[in-house]
Amino acid sequence: MVEAPSTLDLTFKQTVDFLCQAEDLLIMAHAAPDGDTIGSAYGLCLGLRQLGKRARVLCADPLPTRFAFLKLPEAPDFEPKEIVCVDIADPKLAGKANASLAWKSTLCIDHHGSNIRYAQRLYLEPEASSTCEIMVNILERMGVSLTSDIADCLYTGMATDTGCFRFGNTQASTHRTAAKLMECGAHAAKINKDLFDTIGRTRFVLEQLVGQTMQFYLGGRVAVIQVAHDMCVKTGTSDSELEGFASMPGRIEGVLVGVTLREKVDGFYKISLRTNEGIDASAICAKFDGGGHKAAAGCKIKGSLEHARKLILEAIEEALG
Amino acid sequence: MVEAPSTLDLTFKQTVDFLCQAEDLLIMAHAAPDGDTIGSAYGLCLGLRQLGKRARVLCADPLPTRFAFLKLPEAPDFEPKEIVCVDIADPKLAGKANASLAWKSTLCIDHHGSNIRYAQRLYLEPEASSTCEIMVNILERMGVSLTSDIADCLYTGMATDTGCFRFGNTQASTHRTAAKLMECGAHAAKINKDLFDTIGRTRFVLEQLVGQTMQFYLGGRVAVIQVAHDMCVKTGTSDSELEGFASMPGRIEGVLVGVTLREKVDGFYKISLRTNEGIDASAICAKFDGGGHKAAAGCKIKGSLEHARKLILEAIEEALG
Repeated sequence: MVEAPSTLDLTFKQTVDFLCQAEDLLIMAHAAPDGDTIGSAYGLCLGLRQLGKRARVLCADPLPTRFAFLKLPEAPDFEPKEIVCVDIADPKLAGKANASLAWKSTLCIDHHGSNIRYAQRLYLEPEASSTCEIMVNILERMGVSLTSDIADCLYTGMATDTGCFRFGNTQASTHRTAAKLMECGAHAAKINKDLFDTIGRTRFVLEQLVGQTMQFYLGGRVAVIQVAHDMCVKTGTSDSELEGFASMPGRIEGVLVGVTLREKVDGFYKISLRTNEGIDASAICAKFDGGGHKAAAGCKIKGSLEHARKLILEAIEEALG
Repeated sequence: MVEAPSTLDLTFKQTVDFLCQAEDLLIMAHAAPDGDTIGSAYGLCLGLRQLGKRARVLCADPLPTRFAFLKLPEAPDFEPKEIVCVDIADPKLAGKANASLAWKSTLCIDHHGSNIRYAQRLYLEPEASSTCEIMVNILERMGVSLTSDIADCLYTGMATDTGCFRFGNTQASTHRTAAKLMECGAHAAKINKDLFDTIGRTRFVLEQLVGQTMQFYLGGRVAVIQVAHDMCVKTGTSDSELEGFASMPGRIEGVLVGVTLREKVDGFYKISLRTNEGIDASAICAKFDGGGHKAAAGCKIKGSLEHARKLILEAIEEALG
């Protein structure tokens, strides 16, 4: 464990000033990248380059194919003077190879209340829908012109983190920012269609298989689904098509905690929790060294399916009281 | 067939003036009401009452339970001086019992390009996301204060008609209007959760059954699902839980036309089309006396499943060229 440095909380203006004065920036996105980390990293990178600075993005994993429409020109080679982590609540989320670099970050911009305050400087807006919504404001104040490419990046992150403006983190400001990005040329209809309304045939079949595993516990207050490794093999589903299952069980009427148990090849089960009515998913996952948001969190448990399910159900039962 | 009267196209201002001067208004919503017709009818009704007018809503069918959160005080009894149709493209959509009344409407406010121009006066914004988005502007200009109850009505219609801001009809103005309604007290998070993120257990099982009927035609460009009457009986799914299946087949990658064949007890199949990449669903459905929007339309065909499927597939093949 690396000891956390003393973190300086920046104001919005200080963050803008820091970025305006900075040169040669390495921007880090978290591993297993989602739309928000990719969108905010790419958006910031394009904005900094527009201002004549050298900037590139580092991510432990390749860009998932569904984000392939986001364009980022080749990364120039330079020795970074600043390391900026975006949407990374904890250096370990940067991935094994990059965690130590994330610990050295000189600025972190984030919206996760669970941010462990690891960077030298932190600009945190825990009420923001997404890091991308924060980034729109930062780039505008920096004097960056929001081109259509930048708008696509930032819209993508806002849309993915809010479930396309469906989740409770969507605020009036989120809609206003989305309107602005559309006026700047964000291809919202195309992005929404690709991200939220298109499903591969193999994924569709996998959803059917996963749906059939749904089981209810604790008087219907908990619903559990499982994604077994052999289901993925059988349907030929790629890893990048495996996102989004986590929301399935929590959507069933009367369910307070939706649990997704996803079998990993390393002998672990990756567990995703989605909660309703104020149940703290993050607190439940913290018991297994996991974390996240109040209504959406995750953790890993080693062992068999039965073992993982038993442990997480016990923790949920305790939380439900 | 009733002969269509000569319809006067109103400007926005003329529409506002007409409503401001009108007294004793009967507001008609279409049968099998969706969020947009209910939201715009209730929103207008509450707004008119706020201005001291008598107004009530007429709908051929009861309010679906998922819209139960929308509140409308008891309807006062009065002889209507004006009949205002909202979101009704054709009087027959008002339902058998109310169609002749709809033909007598003195004003129609709508966003369907397919509106058959049946009312004495018509305010049509075919580019608007929803009739509710139009209604926000009208009520504001009328000087109505957008209370939380009115905002809930109007948000509901905007959200349902845009698939929660996901569909291509969502524009920058749609997001701005949503922001305004949230600031007026619309319970967006709760409404979204109820309408888009909650699914009954029976409905979930039905989705599994329907998903298993998916078949592909014309080289994967057409996907067809069926909702058989006995599936609904078997799962105990109520009629009001049957919406939203239509989008399922069109979401599969590579599908240009998604077809849903829903068995009705009267010997008809209700056919819903959802199209991608500019295929005109409305034109295909018009061949069977149906209609709707370019990307979403419907019609009915009498006869067996095989017959209905054969006819609609032939029409689609012709359209795909």
